[in-house]
Amino acid sequence: MSSYTYPKFGAGLWHFANYIDRYAVDGYGPALSTLEQIKLAGEVEDLSYVDVPYPFTPGVSVSDVKQALQEAGLQAIGVTPEIYLRKFSRGAFTHPDATVRAEALALMNEAADVVRELGANYVKVWPGQDGWDYPFQVDHKNLWKLAVDGMRELAGANPDVKFAIEYKPREPRVKMTWDSAAKSLLGIEEIGLDNVGILLDFGHALFAGESPAGSAQLIIDRGRLFGMDVNDNLRGWDDDLVVGTVHMTEIFEFFYVLKCNNWDGVWQLDQFPFREDHVEAANLSIRFLKHIYRALDKLDMPALQAAQLEQNPLKAQRIIQNALLTSIEE
Amino acid sequence: MSSYTYPKFGAGLWHFANYIDRYAVDGYGPALSTLEQIKLAGEVEDLSYVDVPYPFTPGVSVSDVKQALQEAGLQAIGVTPEIYLRKFSRGAFTHPDATVRAEALALMNEAADVVRELGANYVKVWPGQDGWDYPFQVDHKNLWKLAVDGMRELAGANPDVKFAIEYKPREPRVKMTWDSAAKSLLGIEEIGLDNVGILLDFGHALFAGESPAGSAQLIIDRGRLFGMDVNDNLRGWDDDLVVGTVHMTEIFEFFYVLKCNNWDGVWQLDQFPFREDHVEAANLSIRFLKHIYRALDKLDMPALQAAQLEQNPLKAQRIIQNALLTSIEE
Amino acid sequence: MSSYTYPKFGAGLWHFANYIDRYAVDGYGPALSTLEQIKLAGEVEDLSYVDVPYPFTPGVSVSDVKQALQEAGLQAIGVTPEIYLRKFSRGAFTHPDATVRAEALALMNEAADVVRELGANYVKVWPGQDGWDYPFQVDHKNLWKLAVDGMRELAGANPDVKFAIEYKPREPRVKMTWDSAAKSLLGIEEIGLDNVGILLDFGHALFAGESPAGSAQLIIDRGRLFGMDVNDNLRGWDDDLVVGTVHMTEIFEFFYVLKCNNWDGVWQLDQFPFREDHVEAANLSIRFLKHIYRALDKLDMPALQAAQLEQNPLKAQRIIQNALLTSIEE
Amino acid sequence: MSSYTYPKFGAGLWHFANYIDRYAVDGYGPALSTLEQIKLAGEVEDLSYVDVPYPFTPGVSVSDVKQALQEAGLQAIGVTPEIYLRKFSRGAFTHPDATVRAEALALMNEAADVVRELGANYVKVWPGQDGWDYPFQVDHKNLWKLAVDGMRELAGANPDVKFAIEYKPREPRVKMTWDSAAKSLLGIEEIGLDNVGILLDFGHALFAGESPAGSAQLIIDRGRLFGMDVNDNLRGWDDDLVVGTVHMTEIFEFFYVLKCNNWDGVWQLDQFPFREDHVEAANLSIRFLKHIYRALDKLDMPALQAAQLEQNPLKAQRIIQNALLTSIEE
Repeated sequence: MSSYTYPKFGAGLWHFANYIDRYAVDGYGPALSTLEQIKLAGEVEDLSYVDVPYPFTPGVSVSDVKQALQEAGLQAIGVTPEIYLRKFSRGAFTHPDATVRAEALALMNEAADVVRELGANYVKVWPGQDGWDYPFQVDHKNLWKLAVDGMRELAGANPDVKFAIEYKPREPRVKMTWDSAAKSLLGIEEIGLDNVGILLDFGHALFAGESPAGSAQLIIDRGRLFGMDVNDNLRGWDDDLVVGTVHMTEIFEFFYVLKCNNWDGVWQLDQFPFREDHVEAANLSIRFLKHIYRALDKLDMPALQAAQLEQNPLKAQRIIQNALLTSIEE
Repeated sequence: MSSYTYPKFGAGLWHFANYIDRYAVDGYGPALSTLEQIKLAGEVEDLSYVDVPYPFTPGVSVSDVKQALQEAGLQAIGVTPEIYLRKFSRGAFTHPDATVRAEALALMNEAADVVRELGANYVKVWPGQDGWDYPFQVDHKNLWKLAVDGMRELAGANPDVKFAIEYKPREPRVKMTWDSAAKSLLGIEEIGLDNVGILLDFGHALFAGESPAGSAQLIIDRGRLFGMDVNDNLRGWDDDLVVGTVHMTEIFEFFYVLKCNNWDGVWQLDQFPFREDHVEAANLSIRFLKHIYRALDKLDMPALQAAQLEQNPLKAQRIIQNALLTSIEE
Repeated sequence: MSSYTYPKFGAGLWHFANYIDRYAVDGYGPALSTLEQIKLAGEVEDLSYVDVPYPFTPGVSVSDVKQALQEAGLQAIGVTPEIYLRKFSRGAFTHPDATVRAEALALMNEAADVVRELGANYVKVWPGQDGWDYPFQVDHKNLWKLAVDGMRELAGANPDVKFAIEYKPREPRVKMTWDSAAKSLLGIEEIGLDNVGILLDFGHALFAGESPAGSAQLIIDRGRLFGMDVNDNLRGWDDDLVVGTVHMTEIFEFFYVLKCNNWDGVWQLDQFPFREDHVEAANLSIRFLKHIYRALDKLDMPALQAAQLEQNPLKAQRIIQNALLTSIEE
Repeated sequence: MSSYTYPKFGAGLWHFANYIDRYAVDGYGPALSTLEQIKLAGEVEDLSYVDVPYPFTPGVSVSDVKQALQEAGLQAIGVTPEIYLRKFSRGAFTHPDATVRAEALALMNEAADVVRELGANYVKVWPGQDGWDYPFQVDHKNLWKLAVDGMRELAGANPDVKFAIEYKPREPRVKMTWDSAAKSLLGIEEIGLDNVGILLDFGHALFAGESPAGSAQLIIDRGRLFGMDVNDNLRGWDDDLVVGTVHMTEIFEFFYVLKCNNWDGVWQLDQFPFREDHVEAANLSIRFLKHIYRALDKLDMPALQAAQLEQNPLKAQRIIQNALLTSIEE
């Protein structure tokens, strides 16, 4: 039996939903309510936290959610306002119509209340519809101003709540405004408030052509890493596959950087198991993440740091393969 | 007033639907029935053909569709069986369960009947759920065999009907089995039947890293170009944007190759105007395509052929810019 | 005859060199000296400026270059120190060895002197070897610190000279440190000096997944657009093709944004005509750019601004197609 | 000590050369002769084969090479004619000038002689300069015909020698004619000769958006897998990194498919260690490949086949992670 004390694991509650897309318009399975999703999440071994989309299924109250979480042995880490539904499909913060922008802000203010009521850590802000689809569609100066001013207004109105922006290069918009770690940090600096940070999604960073480990370091160095998600993809899209199924080395490097910086938050899953069993997908993920945790423990960190000081990739890879593939020296 | 006799223009009927995706789960607009979509299509200037998804909206019969098409001044060019809905979300031809594969074939046989009843040209086969999502998920030999054998069975059972495979690299599957022009031609050759060909989508070819013009030539040389679609994208995804909004030169080259080969089919749109007016999107597209048609007329084809014989891109580009940008020599 | 007063056109002097790569190790043509390249540049119609790599061919002095430029009717807009040759192949600012970093700085200080002697506008800093090739190769915190501190030291030592960083996602390094507009602006802010800015390369922005127009706006809004280059590519690599041969619409949008901001610098070419006539490649480019300039003049800017305020891409595209393809309304 | 009987390992001889590119035009190290490269290759533990570029360094004869190989304990697996040097920079098989095409054929016929003299397995044909750079540059029908006819002429003239085409999407050409597994198989079928096959490069398949394992299966099913190379990259370019440093799972799947098909050829490296010690890079690679070999031995193949029959990625990944990461069940 393992003697390790693992980090806490979490997941976006949507990990336990059924999905729909522009082709399977009848969905990959029957729609599940907020409460049904929480129940499924509770079936995962070793899951402690969920990030809860808001609004809940019609008829479900905050206290229903509270009770369901308690029964499932879960806590809310964050609340994600759905600022990407039909009403906001042409933008939330950046919608051309001021009335719709106000409605988006109202929804996010409600989400801040839910964070308070659930004792969660942050409102996750994922403005997936903010951006553009065509060359010449937008005045780029104006678009950026709307994005930054809106975030400032929101965070300024809720100084007791943290707001974690989750950037992604694109989807559903052909190009998202908050598209990379660096652009998000630029925007956050323009906002000028302490309660705005970043939720770093490993797969989004890969998709953006970043080193996820390098982006983690950059964000940490500015004190803005409010949360993180993991998953996997083939680099060309936000596939939200099960973590560790494609990029073992880069996820290892990602957690290595977090460890070096003593980042001790929740290890969260942001996966969309369209065609798979949702609970088993989470179990497989956590099993892999525990392997990563143990491999970090085995890693010869002083030797790795020395190799990195030389920028010697052969030495560095030999060291990390020893920890990740423990039988390699057989 | 123009004295040109333009080609016939067509569109996938879904151009006039409202869409849904994994984020805007309440849709980008209210659901529209098959008949409502036909009516909208009828409002486009200069549209003659539509490709009709099957099954129709519940309650709508083939004769209802026939009548609606007639009233809208349209004809059916093809019928597209929806082998990508929930039932087939783990595959149609390649579903691991033989029962589901049989259901997919049954649906496609029905679609062949609809082609006969509507007097259309082909069944369009778009197996978007056939493929894989993860490394190690499938036995590649078996997957390809299921794909090829299924197409052969379908086409063999309907020798009087044409079947046009529309390849695409991916989506909704992370990787589609019929993913490129060359692989489709390989499969078609293995099938060994004359009534299986290709519906070449300009944007899919771009997304696949192909020269759409080169793929058209390759498919024509094997006698398999049964139809084509146009649209646009940023190369990294099947964005289904309005044609001509990004890649003017490559769409011009595409139609140039069709003209050189005397290909005289319908110029079809496969666009998803998620956030735009559907009729206006089609009108803008056809306006652009007419410009392309006129530019082909102005093109100094002997000079271009001479430049291509030398493989001289500077000469070739000068010639085609003269035709596409008629005021460039101002 | 045209009555337009066109902007000044320029080119990197390497446009007139012959190239070499890892396959054609004997080069795509015979090596040409700095003076031979200047002479060729002088043969281009309407070229006024060149960006000159430093060191020059052995034996060539600054006064030789000065005289050659004068004879060719050219001026130096910038000087580009070659901090990517063998000595710096493991990094210039970020080389693991402090001695090599000092040599890189010494070379760049010399380049600053050449800027002063030639009366050029800036030292262009393109640290193409600064970055990493493998996961786990570098300590990202340290790498970024080296990059930023080195730039600060260089610019601080030459307060009378401008330094223009040219970012690019990668090549020759698998991943470059200065990889995007946003990351460059972050670094520049950390540097904290007025004489550090950006040379925005249209193709690099495309390759980075940016909207080149959007990046131009972002950089201008922070007062850091010190220069720009144009060319073209297929988005997946820095192909350095002749401008206008692929992305007509996006280059038009790029210059539209420059015009809106009254940016009145030199329109420069950064192209690598590996297999083409270098002078003819430049002539074709400038012919196209003049068309863009005239199209901007024809553009209905108030109507476009109104369409952008609505974020309506169909209206915007109709307006810009009218200007770019003047015969579209035939 | 290990009791495994490992496969034979090989490498392209260029693994031991120094490189040059369009920026580091003075090279990443001093040029090394054919014989020096062979000597370095001999220093690698467990290397048995090399693929030898031809022509050799001036002054080096076939018998010199033979002797050097013998002294280094190596054998030639293939010979690679350098049909990508300056003379062929506008194409080898597809060069617009028939005289140059004849020179390319002559060089390849000489390479066939070297294969005979060295007792190697094949001529590797890598037409990296055959293709196009610009839209509208080529007549696609003519380009493809030149590519196919030339290969047929070459192979037909040397029926006793095998010719292995190595496809790649691009580089140095912006687009290569032999760009994918499927297109290569189409061409080979048009050629219609038994002695033309494919050298499958793992990294090229990744870069082409293929499943390398799936491409191996497709090529094997047509009896055309004449050889293979491994390396790694970030999917967006042919980085030729050390194998196993990025894509552990996909390289494991690749070798799994080879094992299922009883493919028993040489496991070859095609890597370009620009900035690394060449011998150590090869040693690290072979160490990793031995781990893969042992992991295949540990793999529960019946269970994996059952999971693949269901197309169940979660089951499949659990099984392969148990073999690849033996300590995962700790």
